[in-house]
Amino acid sequence: MGEHVVAIDVGGTSMKGALVDRLGRVSALERRPTGRSATVVEDIRRFAGDLIAHGDAAAVGIAVPGLVDSVANVALYSANLGWRDVPAADFVPDGVPVALAHDVRAGGVAEGVYGAGRGVTDFLCLPIGTGMAAAMVLGGSAYAGSRGWGGEIGHTPVWPDGEPCACGQRGCLENYASASAIARRHGGGLTAEQVVAAADEDPVAKRVLDEAVEALGIGLATYTLLLDPALIVIGGGLAGAGERLLAPVRAALASRLAFREAPPVRATAIGPHAGMMGAAILAWRAAGHPDAGSDWS
Amino acid sequence: MGEHVVAIDVGGTSMKGALVDRLGRVSALERRPTGRSATVVEDIRRFAGDLIAHGDAAAVGIAVPGLVDSVANVALYSANLGWRDVPAADFVPDGVPVALAHDVRAGGVAEGVYGAGRGVTDFLCLPIGTGMAAAMVLGGSAYAGSRGWGGEIGHTPVWPDGEPCACGQRGCLENYASASAIARRHGGGLTAEQVVAAADEDPVAKRVLDEAVEALGIGLATYTLLLDPALIVIGGGLAGAGERLLAPVRAALASRLAFREAPPVRATAIGPHAGMMGAAILAWRAAGHPDAGSDWS
Repeated sequence: MGEHVVAIDVGGTSMKGALVDRLGRVSALERRPTGRSATVVEDIRRFAGDLIAHGDAAAVGIAVPGLVDSVANVALYSANLGWRDVPAADFVPDGVPVALAHDVRAGGVAEGVYGAGRGVTDFLCLPIGTGMAAAMVLGGSAYAGSRGWGGEIGHTPVWPDGEPCACGQRGCLENYASASAIARRHGGGLTAEQVVAAADEDPVAKRVLDEAVEALGIGLATYTLLLDPALIVIGGGLAGAGERLLAPVRAALASRLAFREAPPVRATAIGPHAGMMGAAILAWRAAGHPDAGSDWS
Repeated sequence: MGEHVVAIDVGGTSMKGALVDRLGRVSALERRPTGRSATVVEDIRRFAGDLIAHGDAAAVGIAVPGLVDSVANVALYSANLGWRDVPAADFVPDGVPVALAHDVRAGGVAEGVYGAGRGVTDFLCLPIGTGMAAAMVLGGSAYAGSRGWGGEIGHTPVWPDGEPCACGQRGCLENYASASAIARRHGGGLTAEQVVAAADEDPVAKRVLDEAVEALGIGLATYTLLLDPALIVIGGGLAGAGERLLAPVRAALASRLAFREAPPVRATAIGPHAGMMGAAILAWRAAGHPDAGSDWS
């Protein structure tokens, strides 16, 4: 039995990987650029191999964007990374046990096992970054939909006659409330977190933040009415804005609900490593430890 | 072992009950007014007792509106019927085995077992009647949310700055697209089904139908993006309008989706008895027949 697992979170521009032991301790953390198209699967396999070379890995967990079939263990599709139907085994050296997961849902698994959703079986985990996709944890598992396309909350139409989105639809939530949308709509060269922080003095920042918050209130109200979550966890880069973002989001959500209470809205407890740590938990499960992570902090 | 089960579907103004045998054959079908507040639980118990008196019932299934905890077998709350925390056993004579379910989710169970969703594990079942609540069948089971409040699609805000709804929110889907909203917004004394049928000649009917269809397109697009259903089943009274409603709804849904396909949209295969037939299936399951309904038609 290995002393640790290898966990890799593959993002659109960079990937990070590390060794994670049975107590959740991270070592050998490394970040590499994500190669494009032709070499990306090979690059991930080399990254996994280099981490395995540290010795004694029980299994590998890999979190990837796009469409993932976690039952068949196949990466079905990623527009950004240019792959289609890649079996999990292709991401690791021959003969290594591997668990494959969707990156956002892996983050939801980690939040549920030892993060902000610990002990909660039904919650929404919403990382807000360049885009916005959700992990819907339902009855203790991250639900992917009928074919793995579930959780596209960033493209739900909050203002159906609103601004055109790059996806081809109109009024999509992420067009107003993603970190990249907030920075773009402000237009002053600030990061989204800086826009949120500047809202008290900068009227443009205030207008952009107010619209992002209103859009989130509408989108989260719809999610709440449909799926009745016990909790909403906000993660991703924008969670760094803390209560300056969360307090008005709570108010906007409550104002959209008349006959039922809003669920609590909390920031991620794990932060930007949630996807990688979820991949580690899934790797430990694949190595025969179903309770992995429950004693992590 | 009984020859049949007793199935009762309790609605806001009337309830219907029947005997249903192992082959899904219905007999002794009867409709009674739903008593209010003080006597309603007693009225249901008497109805169940009268049906049991036909002889040899294996179990009773009861479908009710409001909030239901199907695990604890308790009717938690109904604003219309005025009850709170009624154990399932209170709805039947002493010692009779009973299964309790939410009415809309019971209908979703029936559609999934032998109706329009037969063989489909992940679908939306949306009866359109006086109001609009959804059965969300996820991974083969009707999902109720963290506390039984899930499926309130009728109160999701399709136009967030739209008309005020009786619920206290604005722009709710059912404010535009429920059968009662369609009849009310037309204002000419027609039923919703008649409004749909008149749309070719009557410009007011056409405008009301167009807005209902647009609202449904937005609400179903949001559901599709979040939950990736393999199928959408439209039921309730308005399903009687058939392709005059479903064809434009399909087009409206597709027009709101840019990067993924729309799921098929079909009419209920069971019709207005879906809730009662779902209660019958759940009663047969409670009597030890987990496959009940799979050979019904």
